[in-house]
Amino acid sequence: MMERAIEFAIHHQDDFLQQLIEIVRIPSISTDAQYRGEVQRAAEWNADRLRDLCAADVEICPVGEQQVVLGKIRGPETAQTLLIYGHYDVMPVDPIELWHSEPFEPLMRDGCLYARGTSDMKAQLVAFYSAVQCIQEVGEMPVNLLFLLDGAEEAGSEALDDFIRTNADRLACDFCLNLDGNILGPEQPSLTYAVRGIAYFELIVRGPDRDLHSGKFGGPVDNPALVLCEIIGGMRDINGRVTLPGFYDPVRPLADEERSALAKLPTDDEWWKRSAGVRALRREDDFTATELGTALPTLNINGLLSGHTGPGGKTLIPASAMAKISMRLVPDQTPAQVEAGLLEYLHARMPDTVEWQLHELPGIRPAVMDREAPQVAAAARALSRTWGVEPLFVREGASVPINSQVGEFLGVGSINMGFGLPDDDFHAPDERMNLTMFRQGIEAYIRYLYELER
Amino acid sequence: MMERAIEFAIHHQDDFLQQLIEIVRIPSISTDAQYRGEVQRAAEWNADRLRDLCAADVEICPVGEQQVVLGKIRGPETAQTLLIYGHYDVMPVDPIELWHSEPFEPLMRDGCLYARGTSDMKAQLVAFYSAVQCIQEVGEMPVNLLFLLDGAEEAGSEALDDFIRTNADRLACDFCLNLDGNILGPEQPSLTYAVRGIAYFELIVRGPDRDLHSGKFGGPVDNPALVLCEIIGGMRDINGRVTLPGFYDPVRPLADEERSALAKLPTDDEWWKRSAGVRALRREDDFTATELGTALPTLNINGLLSGHTGPGGKTLIPASAMAKISMRLVPDQTPAQVEAGLLEYLHARMPDTVEWQLHELPGIRPAVMDREAPQVAAAARALSRTWGVEPLFVREGASVPINSQVGEFLGVGSINMGFGLPDDDFHAPDERMNLTMFRQGIEAYIRYLYELER
Repeated sequence: MMERAIEFAIHHQDDFLQQLIEIVRIPSISTDAQYRGEVQRAAEWNADRLRDLCAADVEICPVGEQQVVLGKIRGPETAQTLLIYGHYDVMPVDPIELWHSEPFEPLMRDGCLYARGTSDMKAQLVAFYSAVQCIQEVGEMPVNLLFLLDGAEEAGSEALDDFIRTNADRLACDFCLNLDGNILGPEQPSLTYAVRGIAYFELIVRGPDRDLHSGKFGGPVDNPALVLCEIIGGMRDINGRVTLPGFYDPVRPLADEERSALAKLPTDDEWWKRSAGVRALRREDDFTATELGTALPTLNINGLLSGHTGPGGKTLIPASAMAKISMRLVPDQTPAQVEAGLLEYLHARMPDTVEWQLHELPGIRPAVMDREAPQVAAAARALSRTWGVEPLFVREGASVPINSQVGEFLGVGSINMGFGLPDDDFHAPDERMNLTMFRQGIEAYIRYLYELER
Repeated sequence: MMERAIEFAIHHQDDFLQQLIEIVRIPSISTDAQYRGEVQRAAEWNADRLRDLCAADVEICPVGEQQVVLGKIRGPETAQTLLIYGHYDVMPVDPIELWHSEPFEPLMRDGCLYARGTSDMKAQLVAFYSAVQCIQEVGEMPVNLLFLLDGAEEAGSEALDDFIRTNADRLACDFCLNLDGNILGPEQPSLTYAVRGIAYFELIVRGPDRDLHSGKFGGPVDNPALVLCEIIGGMRDINGRVTLPGFYDPVRPLADEERSALAKLPTDDEWWKRSAGVRALRREDDFTATELGTALPTLNINGLLSGHTGPGGKTLIPASAMAKISMRLVPDQTPAQVEAGLLEYLHARMPDTVEWQLHELPGIRPAVMDREAPQVAAAARALSRTWGVEPLFVREGASVPINSQVGEFLGVGSINMGFGLPDDDFHAPDERMNLTMFRQGIEAYIRYLYELER
């Protein structure tokens, strides 16, 4: 059955490509209110496509100022239900002058389709619809599919959190496949099975009730900027470990087997140095750079502001000093747990010469999928058979809200599997989708849907 | 002879007050180029006044974009030579709307003369000229006087350093009396015998070659803002002492006798807290707040800037982080010596994950006068006999370039003795000079000039 579906796909590549060309012509930029109608048009295009695929309960639901598209495609009653997440909005096109073709006039060149929103991620959506169509042409859908298509991902999907929480019943599923992913290279399939969370704080230290002359008052009057540096400077020990109480307590240890798998990734030290533009990497115990960047928690200072920041010298004791502090989290850390540790640290360490406030900004929980789960094994088989190469397993260092939300509100695991390439210039001028990856993606999605119920 | 000079002063108070009214009518604002002609007029007024006093070699010398007035009044050939420093420029008048009278229309009210530049410091200049006149009326000047009158003090006197260095021969003297001072209260005379110096640096820590996504790169890529905080946080130990190598080595210990004298000052903890607008003071060993604020060195962070400083959260690893770092110095520290310690510290502590640069801004050496010197004892006698109260000895926490310059380039000590009051609102609206202090100031200067050669 699977082979026949793949056969169908091979003979209908042009149709699928035409669909991709059609949807990328819609400039569904979600970060710019003047494109709101275009985002709505893209939502309708997706709803229509779901209806073409005989989806039930297709609906465009307002979520905040945008909307999501919902729908379901039934498989056997006893089969599992997969929640399919994707987004149909795109990034703005600036700097427009660096594009070599019109961002919303798709252009085929060198085996790629150039247009904003191809790689990220309309090609993945169309590939998945195509896979569903191929399967339907030759037989029955082996699993139940529930679609949650987001119109505001590039704008932060602020209202999605609430929507998933309050619609948990309607979105009940066994597993989530996030189509918004990429593979490591054209010859190296991969899937993402973990994302880091984030906790974000603004810390303000206040000293005198106004800026003071540092000559007249320096000595008996403490300096809030110096206190802030002392407090932040104490948050990391000489081994590079975060010192906040209980910070590492919930961190699941990395199994040797997982470390071996991560060691196979092509992101060696040279890759990290070159990508970051640094001469030396930070070390922490015997962890590799890839482990530090994706599988371990970390603390960052995202901003500092105090006193005189212009040219030359001003001799003042600043009235206050501010830092933006964030932590990337890994399972089973939570924003609330690290905040408790941070508060304990601040209460214990802050001197009585200053006052301070800590503001918490919205956080995201980390998520990790059990790599032994059948849904992961099915994905690995699908990729391996499509490419003829074993896939690599990637942890994402950044935070992906949907993976965390389905974990928190629906109680299910998730993987990210899409077929863009790292050098597709998504979010940049000349974004493109490699059409070989598009075709192999369709085949991989077909195989995956069959493998799930094997 | 001294009594007759004081007698003369009592009978000519009105003349001296008229002279003060005349000079404060000149809006000699040195920070505003459009008043340059007025500063020149004030220079001429002072030169004329010196000529009235039979001064020799009176000259207005261009110094940078402003000028200084020089002149000498001869005493006995065997007598010592005193360099008299003062300034005839004034601060701007903003915020003008908060003045209750015209800043350059002197107004007498409640025993005070209100006008910009009265307390700071034309009243001190006129009081000194008046003292010289009174002495000349009754006999011979007991000492040699050399005048160095500055037209750019409120603008920073940037070119004065070079002028003194290159005119050291011409300014050769035994001691410097800086008239730009004040007393602690109308019933409490005082003089200033020490000023702190300053060293000022800008430290820049650079990490990746651009701002990076803290999720994608956080962990293996170090964070320059965090490194900066660690480096600065290590500059002070838990006892509040500066940790830079050799920082305290040249600091002269505070003798018990000097500590007892400083303990008599009215600047108790409550005074410091109220003046600074803080709830608690910083502690360091068993030093008092006044000692910490005037007689001990201290380190301040004057500014911090890195990454995202606006509202909300941005998840970035900033490409760089900057701090403005300054130290207040006491004898015999020097800007060069603390810079060497800072560099040694930075070389030892900065990790290889970042690059860094240290820029030195202009510094000022500290200065302290031997309190047992005859010129100090003479001043103490003059104040004590004028007020009927023993004077207090004050160390100034801020930096006063002239005191440092005469020490460095002329090799002489200095004290600051003037008769403004702390609540004269100098540099603020409604600046005024208490006329009782003006009269007592004339008497104290008369006594001082006689006491010097007793």
